[in-house]
Amino acid sequence: MQIDYKQAADIVRVCDNVHILTHQSPDGDTLGSAFALHFALSILGKRSLVLCPDEIPERYAFLYKNRVNNQENFEPDCVIAVDLADTGLMGNMRKIYEKKVSLCIDHHISNTMYADNTLVNPDASATCEVMYSLFSELGIKIDDNIARCLYTGIATDTGCFKYSNTTAEAHRICSELIQFDIDFASINREMFDIKSKQRFYLEQHIVDHMEYYFEGRCALLCITKDLCDKLKVDMEDLDGVASIPLQIEGTEVSVTFKEKESGVYKISMRSANSINVSHICQYLGGGGHVKAAGCIVKGTYEQARQQVLDAVGMVLGGQ
Amino acid sequence: MQIDYKQAADIVRVCDNVHILTHQSPDGDTLGSAFALHFALSILGKRSLVLCPDEIPERYAFLYKNRVNNQENFEPDCVIAVDLADTGLMGNMRKIYEKKVSLCIDHHISNTMYADNTLVNPDASATCEVMYSLFSELGIKIDDNIARCLYTGIATDTGCFKYSNTTAEAHRICSELIQFDIDFASINREMFDIKSKQRFYLEQHIVDHMEYYFEGRCALLCITKDLCDKLKVDMEDLDGVASIPLQIEGTEVSVTFKEKESGVYKISMRSANSINVSHICQYLGGGGHVKAAGCIVKGTYEQARQQVLDAVGMVLGGQ
Repeated sequence: MQIDYKQAADIVRVCDNVHILTHQSPDGDTLGSAFALHFALSILGKRSLVLCPDEIPERYAFLYKNRVNNQENFEPDCVIAVDLADTGLMGNMRKIYEKKVSLCIDHHISNTMYADNTLVNPDASATCEVMYSLFSELGIKIDDNIARCLYTGIATDTGCFKYSNTTAEAHRICSELIQFDIDFASINREMFDIKSKQRFYLEQHIVDHMEYYFEGRCALLCITKDLCDKLKVDMEDLDGVASIPLQIEGTEVSVTFKEKESGVYKISMRSANSINVSHICQYLGGGGHVKAAGCIVKGTYEQARQQVLDAVGMVLGGQ
Repeated sequence: MQIDYKQAADIVRVCDNVHILTHQSPDGDTLGSAFALHFALSILGKRSLVLCPDEIPERYAFLYKNRVNNQENFEPDCVIAVDLADTGLMGNMRKIYEKKVSLCIDHHISNTMYADNTLVNPDASATCEVMYSLFSELGIKIDDNIARCLYTGIATDTGCFKYSNTTAEAHRICSELIQFDIDFASINREMFDIKSKQRFYLEQHIVDHMEYYFEGRCALLCITKDLCDKLKVDMEDLDGVASIPLQIEGTEVSVTFKEKESGVYKISMRSANSINVSHICQYLGGGGHVKAAGCIVKGTYEQARQQVLDAVGMVLGGQ
């Protein structure tokens, strides 16, 4: 059932022992939302525990390390999922929790409404933005810990206010949040600037081996398993790789081949402007959004590439 | 003479024909301020002309192209300089204008107060933030053109709200500005993401040839004239290069050697944390800020490097 802020606040008020669930492959928004809620519940005198299906990457430790005390488990009287649009994103927690979520707080329009009660605002740039409004409804006075978490979620989901999903409300909220003692510049450095040496070498390889088609309007790159092994790159280090070609002047469409297994390629397409890559990927049996879509293509690399370029050409050629 | 917003508004009100000056090597803030002022003056029924000592790079054309009409010159009754802290930044316009600036609008604490009247707010993240307040004082209703300019200035001077100079006011103002029809996501892509292929190759070379000292805490890179020639890199393409090494995990201090002429190196130092590179550069005869400083070192590259590493070691070694 879809509920509003007031109803969500009513649910939170009657909880005492809360399990807070994040989605798998956790990012700044799901973790920021989860720990912000944990700190807010503490202020309300409630016990809570943040549960994540995967290990939380060390780069997010600043959100909770030496800030969250008691992490012993307990029997919950309420389970709240944050930024978790679909039970398929629960990973190894799915079996236990998929039918036990009392409240889901989210901003994804694709939320499958699996929870007993769902507070979802698709106009929000991040779940942390929804969380901020919920805390207002609950009358919670924001402190440094909460501000740090909410800022991190909003900043990471908007690419540091760079992307078109950034809302006026996101800026307004962060205008308030950066006045707390949160060292947002260090957070942004950690979230957006710092890369591992492996990542640098990977990007270097990508730029070096990028192929250009349609007079440079389409840039294509291929990441093989051999390459990952050679560069000692974790799958985690591949985040955001698909958008690198779009950084090059004149590129309108980027196509990234990732070798899943021999003869099977996962294709990620990104568009810099009005070109709808979702249409191209649909034609190839996949789907997605206007500016970010994907599909699976099989065959040798040469065959797969030709198939994809033919599909891209149908759109780029016709313009 | 330092003046306040009300006094600055009074000066603007009595002008009719205004020359607006930007600083040389124009950036988003000086151009955003200048064209925002031009559009505001148009609303007030005043004639104005933006003058820039250097050619305006094509990437800023969206601020004014097909938006500014009459660009014929005229005899001004008022000269207003924006984001121009020192007459030394007037380039080829210095001789004509250095003693003729009626009003300077700025945010640099280093402003030399060369103008008859100076409105400077060192707490502002950008001159465009000062400009916004001045427009409020003048009762100017912001439109799309003005919003686009002010947003660009604030976004570029704060690294898209990433750096510590980002103010609560900057977020608050941009919360309002992004509600205009300005396509801020495209602006940010143009300002922050897109690079020339030459720039990509340069960064690649840099990562490939970076030298690490003090257990990786100091990264050092050298850009020779030969390298620039080889990669066909303009000096314009060297912007921001000094901070690239700080993107690598574990790097605390970055040192960039730029070969000015044979045996003369311009050193740029950047600090990622509390290490004061201004102290190091002062020791070497230069100066600057805590996190960004510079100096000139002479000798062969090996000699210059040793000199610099000795100085860096005095700080890094002692920690």
